[in-house]
Amino acid sequence: MAKIVDISQRNLYLKNEDLDDAVSKYLKMTEAGRTRAAEEMVPVTGCLGMVTAEPVFAKISSPYYNASAMDGICVKALEIVGVDERSPRVLTLHEDFEFVDTGDVIEEPYNAVVMIEDVVTVDDAHVRIAKPVALWQHVRPIGEDIVAGELIVPAYHKLRAMDIGALLAGGILSVAVLKKPRAGIIPTGTEIVEAGSPMEKGKIIDSNTRMFEALIKEYGGEPTRYAPVPDDYEVIKTAIQKAVAENDMVLISAGSSAGTEDYTRALVEELGEVAIHGVAIKPGKPAILGFIEGKPVIGIPGYPVSAYFVFENFVKPVILGMTHQLNVSRPVIKATLSKRLMSTLKYLEFVRMKCGKVGGRFVATPLDRGAGVTMSLVNADGILRVPKNVEGYEAGQEVDIELLRPVEEIENTLVTIGSHDVMIDIMANIIHKNKKLVNLSSAHVGSLGGIMAFKKGECHLTPTHLLDEETGDYNVPVIKKYLGEGRAALIKGVKRVQGFMIPKGNPKNIKSIEDLTRDGVTFVNRQRGAGTRVLFDYLLKQKGIEAEQIVGYDRELNTHMMVASAVQSGSCDVGMGVLSAANMMGLDFIPVGDEEYDFIVSQENLEDEKVQVFLEALRGSELREALTELGGYGFDEPGKVVLI
Amino acid sequence: MAKIVDISQRNLYLKNEDLDDAVSKYLKMTEAGRTRAAEEMVPVTGCLGMVTAEPVFAKISSPYYNASAMDGICVKALEIVGVDERSPRVLTLHEDFEFVDTGDVIEEPYNAVVMIEDVVTVDDAHVRIAKPVALWQHVRPIGEDIVAGELIVPAYHKLRAMDIGALLAGGILSVAVLKKPRAGIIPTGTEIVEAGSPMEKGKIIDSNTRMFEALIKEYGGEPTRYAPVPDDYEVIKTAIQKAVAENDMVLISAGSSAGTEDYTRALVEELGEVAIHGVAIKPGKPAILGFIEGKPVIGIPGYPVSAYFVFENFVKPVILGMTHQLNVSRPVIKATLSKRLMSTLKYLEFVRMKCGKVGGRFVATPLDRGAGVTMSLVNADGILRVPKNVEGYEAGQEVDIELLRPVEEIENTLVTIGSHDVMIDIMANIIHKNKKLVNLSSAHVGSLGGIMAFKKGECHLTPTHLLDEETGDYNVPVIKKYLGEGRAALIKGVKRVQGFMIPKGNPKNIKSIEDLTRDGVTFVNRQRGAGTRVLFDYLLKQKGIEAEQIVGYDRELNTHMMVASAVQSGSCDVGMGVLSAANMMGLDFIPVGDEEYDFIVSQENLEDEKVQVFLEALRGSELREALTELGGYGFDEPGKVVLI
Repeated sequence: MAKIVDISQRNLYLKNEDLDDAVSKYLKMTEAGRTRAAEEMVPVTGCLGMVTAEPVFAKISSPYYNASAMDGICVKALEIVGVDERSPRVLTLHEDFEFVDTGDVIEEPYNAVVMIEDVVTVDDAHVRIAKPVALWQHVRPIGEDIVAGELIVPAYHKLRAMDIGALLAGGILSVAVLKKPRAGIIPTGTEIVEAGSPMEKGKIIDSNTRMFEALIKEYGGEPTRYAPVPDDYEVIKTAIQKAVAENDMVLISAGSSAGTEDYTRALVEELGEVAIHGVAIKPGKPAILGFIEGKPVIGIPGYPVSAYFVFENFVKPVILGMTHQLNVSRPVIKATLSKRLMSTLKYLEFVRMKCGKVGGRFVATPLDRGAGVTMSLVNADGILRVPKNVEGYEAGQEVDIELLRPVEEIENTLVTIGSHDVMIDIMANIIHKNKKLVNLSSAHVGSLGGIMAFKKGECHLTPTHLLDEETGDYNVPVIKKYLGEGRAALIKGVKRVQGFMIPKGNPKNIKSIEDLTRDGVTFVNRQRGAGTRVLFDYLLKQKGIEAEQIVGYDRELNTHMMVASAVQSGSCDVGMGVLSAANMMGLDFIPVGDEEYDFIVSQENLEDEKVQVFLEALRGSELREALTELGGYGFDEPGKVVLI
Repeated sequence: MAKIVDISQRNLYLKNEDLDDAVSKYLKMTEAGRTRAAEEMVPVTGCLGMVTAEPVFAKISSPYYNASAMDGICVKALEIVGVDERSPRVLTLHEDFEFVDTGDVIEEPYNAVVMIEDVVTVDDAHVRIAKPVALWQHVRPIGEDIVAGELIVPAYHKLRAMDIGALLAGGILSVAVLKKPRAGIIPTGTEIVEAGSPMEKGKIIDSNTRMFEALIKEYGGEPTRYAPVPDDYEVIKTAIQKAVAENDMVLISAGSSAGTEDYTRALVEELGEVAIHGVAIKPGKPAILGFIEGKPVIGIPGYPVSAYFVFENFVKPVILGMTHQLNVSRPVIKATLSKRLMSTLKYLEFVRMKCGKVGGRFVATPLDRGAGVTMSLVNADGILRVPKNVEGYEAGQEVDIELLRPVEEIENTLVTIGSHDVMIDIMANIIHKNKKLVNLSSAHVGSLGGIMAFKKGECHLTPTHLLDEETGDYNVPVIKKYLGEGRAALIKGVKRVQGFMIPKGNPKNIKSIEDLTRDGVTFVNRQRGAGTRVLFDYLLKQKGIEAEQIVGYDRELNTHMMVASAVQSGSCDVGMGVLSAANMMGLDFIPVGDEEYDFIVSQENLEDEKVQVFLEALRGSELREALTELGGYGFDEPGKVVLI
């Protein structure tokens, strides 16, 4: 890690180009330098999703002959003119008619079909008809479907299932398609290891380039991922040269910023040209957009979420452009923002959002905004763009959300906002598995934050564990205080054990809350509004301890698991949380007491089908078994509803 | 073809179940009989688009260690409390700090990072800082991204690129996914031949089952297409038994109706049970929905468009249900209907529509409604559902269109409604190829129909060739008559030769229009409103010939190519059309005269970017070369604009 560097050599020259300007400038340059895409012939049966290189015209007509359009008999229309109810006609088999099925050939001397429903059997060899017959009635003319010479699909058309049917019907067996654009991917970084390698401190699993592989496939390209290369100028240079020679475009993962070991910019400058370095987006600022030998070469930042947005905004349109495909925008919904969201004036920010439909309107809650938090992308239902020069939005404001999931999925989602417990994840699974049309989405803002969200009608359920300092009771008194009576109901959840999580063996010999004030003991806290934080503050008050006496009181983490993880890693000596989290991380635990982890629901939402599905799962044995295995939970009457 | 049958044996017992009832009944039965889907382990790098069988929890935390979130120096926060502008601090390398890059390990004794922008170099071994430092600032805690034990994706989740990244980062190398449902496809019919076989009358290329293959792949299934089987009860039975044994569901293509050779119903009844036969949809009525050994077996009608709608309404939800995926509906737009559309009260009808955006509103025009016309599906931009018990809609009414293409593509489409000429197809190609964001859509309703559409603002351009009987001039007088002055402009197109198309060698010795009244000579006409029909009627009038004197006057076909095809196949002796169509079909031709094939545009649309793209292509050499090769075209001033 440690090394002496001359700080003046750092690449401190990132620009801050506007996204739209950067995209249009780079795409224009890409287009100008583009040579005609390579073509190949593929069999029609294997062309799904490929893009035609030329228009395709039918070789033969379909149907290939005049065909009966009905089951019935074929007749000579011109010989039976004048037939009707009053003057029916008896016809003789093999002289005046033949039986035909749909699709049979109609040819000389026959030129019309009478459908079987209009044919009366006289005997084995005779039938009677009593309706007029028009020339060529119920006959599909040659080429009714496709005429030889007719255009079936134009050039640059992405082939669909129905096109495959039409091409084959038109006598086409193979089509000229554009070869998939080849995109080389170079993972860089001395710290990078392949997934599956033994892990050690300082190592990072390369996952971004695997995401790129999948995205490239999705957008119609052909990825080639090269082995990771260390932060060595010459080694990366050789890798880039090889990748440029073998592909139509190249992505360089990580090393795109302006650090001492960020070589991408210098290398692209040496081997070609850098068009843009630094785009005013967040996450994703340190993108490098360049060309080597006329081919697009893009340096993508190493943080996973930054990487995703640079890919979506630059790599995707480049790939689509190479196959002349439209960059179709995501569907957008109008949603009410559930909490205030501040953004920087300097960047266009992409905020990952959880969405749900509560009481007939969509609500959206921002997820973790760190560029390194992959899970914020995995859990996102959509993206909110906060433009440059916009400070942010107020809670309750209506915003546009670009959806990452189908709107039906969001409409079928039970929204919980409040305190987090691992039981929420387990419930999500049970519900998703048993009732495929109901999902559970959870935003973790702490119990008090959840009550605020509930007040504004932004969630179906609020998981909560709030101690009333006066009565020592959980939840009901606090709900009455904040929500009044007659509006809400409490769904009883589980009891869980709260306490102090400490490393195995208790090296700092912590026995009570007073030990937290000792020299050399560091604590990690939960965020404001978390029930656990409320409990901790209550305990401090009881003992007359001031917050300033505790080192680390101001360091806030958002979940029990993150606190447990901090204790396990040694970045602090003690944190407060539930037994189940301590167990999962293999920590020792000093219990402080039981608490009640329940769910607030509005009385009007109680009958909502999604809430009913939740109740069913809460009362079932699957949850109880899973929580018993984890340990630290108690069950009184899970799923009992108490009107407040 | 011909055979004697006892009509009483025909399967005349199709029902007419409502679509929604049929779908929900069949899906409920399918679900009841479903066994748990098979699972398999796949490497995460190859799991894109697969569906998880179990929830996946992270095995390791990411980051795996406390990591620097910035380039800078790492310091001991608790030893430099109180630093600020007025009391800066000089730190010594290897004693008080180390240089770090983003991602480097932060460990004992260091516990905070100062970013490089806030570090002032004093000399090689010393730096100065002048801002307060908080414990763990700019350090990504272990598990900030993903905490070991955290849920990454739930069960029954379709894996996306971002999930792949998160799974690998969480230490997951392989995931349990649902095996793709296997769908066996049996093409049936004695008339069926494989694509590529030499064609002869009475044979039909099997294209539907290839469309099914592609659709099954698209919806996440694994198709197995068996060789076509002839209409033989025992042979089909053996094929079904094999397919049921080898797959999770079976599709039987064709033979689902109630004809003499339609064995599907009887076979499914013998081997299992038929739940539904006959659904009140058009196209698609004779669908068979059944089960054999608890597995869904679906009989799909042979007409391509019927086949498509039965697949979409029944097969698709069955496949999606097997992998617990939501059946996401297509995006819907509101569009103005460009012409009256009558439907039957007995069926829910799926009408294929062309759409475009003209003057700020979407307009939709129905395409050919025959169940056999694959091209109506290929060319459709969307589907209009006309419910059962609804007679139809009036022109100008607003209707809902379910889109088959992205709305952006429709917004970028230049809409032409009017007369058809092969030059329209060629223009479509030139435009689509050179300007990828502009498409050309053409609805063929004849010149007069086009003028009516133009009047209602439903198209950008109207291709027209209308003779004014009084002046003998083309287009301008007729436009003035219908549209007045000051509103429209004429874009000059091409001259083309009209005449009579006759088989090679002129077997009926046709020399003039009078020959069409001779005994034994059959004609085929164009539809009302077609410019060619107007011309033909004008010629008849000139010669004093009555329509009734011509056999086949009432038989109407919609395009030049269909008329040429009818002449070539021998279903008529003569038809009227353009030289290029006769040439394409290898017919002889008796020219009648030149006509002018031009385009009407409104003066306000003249500056529309899409119209400009059209003008550019019209004036270019690519069109001229293509039409010269076809023959029968003349060029005066293509692309010249005449205000009217």
